[in-house]
Amino acid sequence: MTETWATRAGLDLFLAPEAARGARPRRALEDALRDAVRTGRLAAGTRVPSSRSLAADLGIARNTVAEVYGQLVAEGWFEARVGSGTWVGERPRPAARPAPPERTTRPAADLRAGLPDGTQLPRSAWTAATRRAIEALGPGELGYTPRVGLPRLREEVAEYVARTRGVVARPDDVVVTTGFSETLALVCAALRASGARRLAVEAYGHERHRAIARAAGLDLQVLPVDDDGARVDLLDADAVLLTPAHQFPTGVPLAPARRVAVARWAEATDGLVVEDDYDGELRYDRRPVGALQALAPGHVVYAGTANKAFAPSLGVGWAVAPGWLVAELERIRADRGVRADGLGQAVLADLLATHAYDRHVRRVRVAYRERRDRLAAALASRVPRAQLRGLPAGLHVVVELPDGVAASAAVEAGERHGVLFEALADFRAAVPGIVGGADADGRCVVVGFGAPPAHAYAAALEGTVAALAEAAG
Amino acid sequence: MTETWATRAGLDLFLAPEAARGARPRRALEDALRDAVRTGRLAAGTRVPSSRSLAADLGIARNTVAEVYGQLVAEGWFEARVGSGTWVGERPRPAARPAPPERTTRPAADLRAGLPDGTQLPRSAWTAATRRAIEALGPGELGYTPRVGLPRLREEVAEYVARTRGVVARPDDVVVTTGFSETLALVCAALRASGARRLAVEAYGHERHRAIARAAGLDLQVLPVDDDGARVDLLDADAVLLTPAHQFPTGVPLAPARRVAVARWAEATDGLVVEDDYDGELRYDRRPVGALQALAPGHVVYAGTANKAFAPSLGVGWAVAPGWLVAELERIRADRGVRADGLGQAVLADLLATHAYDRHVRRVRVAYRERRDRLAAALASRVPRAQLRGLPAGLHVVVELPDGVAASAAVEAGERHGVLFEALADFRAAVPGIVGGADADGRCVVVGFGAPPAHAYAAALEGTVAALAEAAG
Repeated sequence: MTETWATRAGLDLFLAPEAARGARPRRALEDALRDAVRTGRLAAGTRVPSSRSLAADLGIARNTVAEVYGQLVAEGWFEARVGSGTWVGERPRPAARPAPPERTTRPAADLRAGLPDGTQLPRSAWTAATRRAIEALGPGELGYTPRVGLPRLREEVAEYVARTRGVVARPDDVVVTTGFSETLALVCAALRASGARRLAVEAYGHERHRAIARAAGLDLQVLPVDDDGARVDLLDADAVLLTPAHQFPTGVPLAPARRVAVARWAEATDGLVVEDDYDGELRYDRRPVGALQALAPGHVVYAGTANKAFAPSLGVGWAVAPGWLVAELERIRADRGVRADGLGQAVLADLLATHAYDRHVRRVRVAYRERRDRLAAALASRVPRAQLRGLPAGLHVVVELPDGVAASAAVEAGERHGVLFEALADFRAAVPGIVGGADADGRCVVVGFGAPPAHAYAAALEGTVAALAEAAG
Repeated sequence: MTETWATRAGLDLFLAPEAARGARPRRALEDALRDAVRTGRLAAGTRVPSSRSLAADLGIARNTVAEVYGQLVAEGWFEARVGSGTWVGERPRPAARPAPPERTTRPAADLRAGLPDGTQLPRSAWTAATRRAIEALGPGELGYTPRVGLPRLREEVAEYVARTRGVVARPDDVVVTTGFSETLALVCAALRASGARRLAVEAYGHERHRAIARAAGLDLQVLPVDDDGARVDLLDADAVLLTPAHQFPTGVPLAPARRVAVARWAEATDGLVVEDDYDGELRYDRRPVGALQALAPGHVVYAGTANKAFAPSLGVGWAVAPGWLVAELERIRADRGVRADGLGQAVLADLLATHAYDRHVRRVRVAYRERRDRLAAALASRVPRAQLRGLPAGLHVVVELPDGVAASAAVEAGERHGVLFEALADFRAAVPGIVGGADADGRCVVVGFGAPPAHAYAAALEGTVAALAEAAG
């Protein structure tokens, strides 16, 4: 076929016998011309044939071509120039083809702290709860979900955290978020808006949390962490972020006297405590210490999440906050335009109401405890000079290596054995002039046992133990 | 029974015959004592009996009581004072009882603009898609969902907006948000971070959107709206928020020449156009004008949502943005800690991939068109002097009342007839010195027809027509 304007534009379809053209020539021609412009087959600034001429070439009605030109002019693909016909618009357009997917290297077993095993998601319970929840949605639950969460879920969360963690909570005190990070970001913004300038953080923690606070415009005071938890006696800030039940990632619980001291500090200074109860549900050896929040509900925002014990893909967290702060969190969420998925919240409310949530938590707690026990037993037998900390709860342990063994050497050995874990020092706030943590800091690694799927845990465990044994000599 | 310390503390259970105490006295005693402190039955600062004495009163092992005291001290409810026994901690605690629910007045039929009918949610399609999506979740989809959205949903959205709206989109260009408001808030924050100071907005729009822009630190330029849409020739800003397909709420489409002009403006000034395609899927009378984004993909962020056509309770929106902006939106979302529900995203991806989403949109489009036609017919027959605008799309119409009839009078008549609609002037940006909109502004009301459930629409329609007929005399 010789190249004509129509073939250049990719209109070959229209040159084929009538039967091949389909029933909707107008739509097909529009799509073909748009595609031709988008991909550059029809260059910007070129003139297109008159509608009469193209209609004759294609064997379709002139009126059809004229309508298509009109549509494409309206959409800006073509330009109609008075007295000079129709032209392809002048701006360049990138191709619409998807980019080829990036090649990914085979990942090592991920033993970073705090990551749960997403494959524990109880798929059939979720599906069953969805069916029930969707059928039960009332007329008031089908519109836009309130910024602070679906009322039914706020009720269930209030009941749940009171029952499991001793939190003093009415439904009106609960704000549903997409997870702890969002809770923290909202609280930091509320603090800043109320004139606060400084947030105290523990010397160890997630760098992401510190970044969120800094992004909100807060300065950080770093509190050293010792065997009784964070040194709250050194507090010199407007608010403090704590992990009282199980300091992250060192595993130290905040000592009772310090719990009382920080509650008194908050009341005396009108300060705010942000209680990150990140692994409140994952306690193995004894009944957990209750939430600090109950000591001073007017000055503590309690923050929990369903993402660790239930499923990270859920994307749900909750805050129990004093009244003024609930109103502020709602206002800031509105300014950020964030409004979480009401359907998912209805499903979670159903899971809590039917106790399917509790049943699932108990099941994963047993599974994670068994992983922890296997890790502890393997290390005791094959790296006997290592000491373990932070065992009673959570999804990771701290391994203190023998004197003279650098954590960095263990991390490198891990890479050679195909496992990814981190040095304790990686969690330390990088603030010059403030020393935090135990002397052993440089010899400690943090080993998560949550993330690998069950079938991959044995290999991840073997790689970890081999790496630590190698590093410890 | 005489009042003893134990009865005051609500421990009557333990004074009953042994059989009533249950198998776990330690847990029951802990809960009872916590509850007593929380509700004030045990006042702060009072001394509690010795463990020996209370154990004798209750007929349980002294060791159990001692353990319970230890736990409550650890949790901060009690204080152990050296040489002086155990005391109830000193800070007051609010009661944990839920507040009584507020009495709500019976709402009028809600005919505010832009609200869809949540009862249109296709419950069985959603449940079926959930079952499929949850079963199909791959190992890479069970962890934390990427800030920019589940990869599978980004692919489906790119395909969907290219197909239905002519948007030039690769999966990597798509950012999944919780709705248009979040998209706008993120874009405003990105603009501010890049040094932009001024956002142009249309003279009519949602006050919430203007509030979001101001909260992000942007000044507003207000563009008058005439019969060709926003006066983009007056642009003097770093970026502009437009509703090109169907100006909200006046209903005017942006004229082809202005579409081209604003694309050229963006390219020439390195400006950014935020294209709010809020009702892109709800067009009734003709094939929609394609997205403006295709004219200048490097300078337009296209924003759509599933909340109007599908279900507001879904809480999903999407942005198609230039590369630099995708990276910025991701960064800012991380600073805000927002991470949307991966399970819901997987379900939506399934609905798009199986075209159940399209089938639903076609179904509601027919239902909404029928509502619009009934409203138009009733007004033509009973308020013949009123003129309608903005009919071809969306969930509302603008009713221009006859000369001399104030919109406020019509709104008040609506209240008497149990229907809630708004004056066009309520949507006008309140910026002194800049006049926007038609002369008829003060005679126009905006009547939504989306929100009432199907069974309530006839009554809402009757109330509206009666009110407008009354106001128009």
